[in-house]
Amino acid sequence: MKADPRTLQDRLDALVAINPVPPSGACRMALTEDDRAGRDLFAEWAEAAGLTVTVDAIGNMMATLSGTCPDLEPVMSGSHLDTVATGGRFDGALGVVAALGVAEALAHEPPPRSLVVANFTNEEGARFAPDMLGSLVAVGGMSLDAAREVAATDGAVLGASLEAIGYAGAAPLLKDWARRPHAFVELHVEQGPVLDEAGIGIGAVTGVQGIAWREITFEGEANHAGATPHRLRRDAGRAALQIGQAATALPERFGDDLLATVGSLTLEPGLINVIPAKATLTVDLRHPDKATLDAADEALTEAIEATFGTGCACTHRSLARFDPVVFDERVVARIEAAAKARGLSHRRIISGAGHDAQMLARIAPAAMIFAPSIGGISHNPAETTNEADITAALGVLEDVLTGLCHEVP
Amino acid sequence: MKADPRTLQDRLDALVAINPVPPSGACRMALTEDDRAGRDLFAEWAEAAGLTVTVDAIGNMMATLSGTCPDLEPVMSGSHLDTVATGGRFDGALGVVAALGVAEALAHEPPPRSLVVANFTNEEGARFAPDMLGSLVAVGGMSLDAAREVAATDGAVLGASLEAIGYAGAAPLLKDWARRPHAFVELHVEQGPVLDEAGIGIGAVTGVQGIAWREITFEGEANHAGATPHRLRRDAGRAALQIGQAATALPERFGDDLLATVGSLTLEPGLINVIPAKATLTVDLRHPDKATLDAADEALTEAIEATFGTGCACTHRSLARFDPVVFDERVVARIEAAAKARGLSHRRIISGAGHDAQMLARIAPAAMIFAPSIGGISHNPAETTNEADITAALGVLEDVLTGLCHEVP
Repeated sequence: MKADPRTLQDRLDALVAINPVPPSGACRMALTEDDRAGRDLFAEWAEAAGLTVTVDAIGNMMATLSGTCPDLEPVMSGSHLDTVATGGRFDGALGVVAALGVAEALAHEPPPRSLVVANFTNEEGARFAPDMLGSLVAVGGMSLDAAREVAATDGAVLGASLEAIGYAGAAPLLKDWARRPHAFVELHVEQGPVLDEAGIGIGAVTGVQGIAWREITFEGEANHAGATPHRLRRDAGRAALQIGQAATALPERFGDDLLATVGSLTLEPGLINVIPAKATLTVDLRHPDKATLDAADEALTEAIEATFGTGCACTHRSLARFDPVVFDERVVARIEAAAKARGLSHRRIISGAGHDAQMLARIAPAAMIFAPSIGGISHNPAETTNEADITAALGVLEDVLTGLCHEVP
Repeated sequence: MKADPRTLQDRLDALVAINPVPPSGACRMALTEDDRAGRDLFAEWAEAAGLTVTVDAIGNMMATLSGTCPDLEPVMSGSHLDTVATGGRFDGALGVVAALGVAEALAHEPPPRSLVVANFTNEEGARFAPDMLGSLVAVGGMSLDAAREVAATDGAVLGASLEAIGYAGAAPLLKDWARRPHAFVELHVEQGPVLDEAGIGIGAVTGVQGIAWREITFEGEANHAGATPHRLRRDAGRAALQIGQAATALPERFGDDLLATVGSLTLEPGLINVIPAKATLTVDLRHPDKATLDAADEALTEAIEATFGTGCACTHRSLARFDPVVFDERVVARIEAAAKARGLSHRRIISGAGHDAQMLARIAPAAMIFAPSIGGISHNPAETTNEADITAALGVLEDVLTGLCHEVP
């Protein structure tokens, strides 16, 4: 392996040091001064390695190692440097600095194809919605104008925030490039417990689950819990409990590949002896197969309709709906082959979380490499991955990118 | 009728005016300056009517019309002047000013027995726990020392708060009186919709439901909702939903006289795509029959035990447990007879809410008169009762108290 695992860890340390969150996490929320500091470090490292850094109008950074055959489509790799408020050391940053390390190593003897290392803007969606915004705009899934108008949770506006940190660039968006990528490969930590629990070092990610998010609100009537007979109640809490229970029971019907989570449920006024006047809950459904996800989502609609007898007014809306993404089989097979050649344990896995790679998959053959997350802990400053697993994943990324960069017609 | 309905309404207006809450409610939380102002008005009116006002060590106020036979046990009536933060015009205050109006009317020709009009401290429990604290201490159910040490939701201490508003008195507690009351009658609004829905003017309250309050907490593990298979989850939210659903379904098994309410449920961190690490919910169970309440509470315990397979740590505790209270049949019958004699529609009813009368029932024959609450709205500034129904209830109270005051051995 040519890329240096020690440099990779040092760079992760330097990124964490911008705004560390104990025990080992970081906070670099999108388009803040902390994000700017991370971007500046990336640009500095890339330029020192002889790469050319450009920034597009949505702030995506591209550090390019020019290949020997400039007419060939470039290979692309990368991830994001932004984090959630309580971010981990590896989430996002690993994929950027690992790709940078590979480009740096290849710079000594450039391959035929160029290698572009990407840092996409606002992947987390923790400050600006939606998540994966930078890659979404890059591939043409959202207009630049609409994206620039997005307001942050803290009131800031995205376009002005980009300018404030000096990252509203002039380079064309990926969708307008003369040559679309030959392939896109993203290294990321799993953010789930599957690889760690199975003791497997490399995940060859075959796709991303589909997502259906719903917010359901019931409006009933606040009344005294001791003085109101059931037949005269309009109990918004009871309706919400009925839906929440129905939603979390959906895997019994659709199988365990259906992930069903009620992450948020609020009752108002929220007093022990007052019948809730209002209840709001969210349902997060995920499945790798579109037809099954659609059927489960439809079953949720039926469960909602079954609450209409409670006398509560019900409104519900979709907060997100992404069809499952299937990654490129050829790129996935390359990842498997590289892991096998290095004697590493590996398995195919479907990503539960969303990633920039799923946006890139719209315009290029794409896939991902997962490194195990210890205990599956994610979006948490305690997120961690063994150094040996990081080094192994860096090796696989290097092999895959090197192979792709040498793949000529 | 001798008591003046107009004066009663004027006094309710004056109490509301201390700290009105639109549209027609009031805020006089226990032992605040607003409560002091209400107490001062009551004392002023009572003294102007020739009653003797005393205050005991827990702040309960007693305004006594001396009877002609001072050796006979006194008759007692009253309620509370404190309110919840968003209190109604009638809740509590009605029972005090109505009893005062009757005493005032009887003062022109005092009956054999004395009539004591009571304003009990902190009935609502909205600022200091438990509710019905003043009457509880008065009958010896809680020690004065323990009560004085109770801390308010805002940090104030009860004993110091009593002194601050000048209502830590020197009169003996009811339990230490030489003569316990001959009877206690409390007029109150129903706080539920039963009388209003049935178009009935007078409720003769036969008792108070038993109450079992539980707080149940599950501790699981926060993880990514998309990346964590169900078999590796410890989903505190799912466990809480299971209990909440089981609790609200208990009436299907124990009958509709069992009131089951989940008024509060919180999930942490409360994010759409994060499996809840912690969930806390409350269950409020009520039933007029002790054996059924016990059985339902036991069924709740079994439902809690059924969640032990979820991998979440569960703790639960009782927040309140009151056995049902059965009021005195003789006093209830007097109320019915008075309503009948006045040609008023009436029915027997069980109180869903707790009242000072249930504490008084420990040491004296007690019962209550309910006036209808329009729409059952309670603990809400929109709480209201028709003036005609208030006047009718005042008449019944006068008849019952007059009868009891003339009941001699």
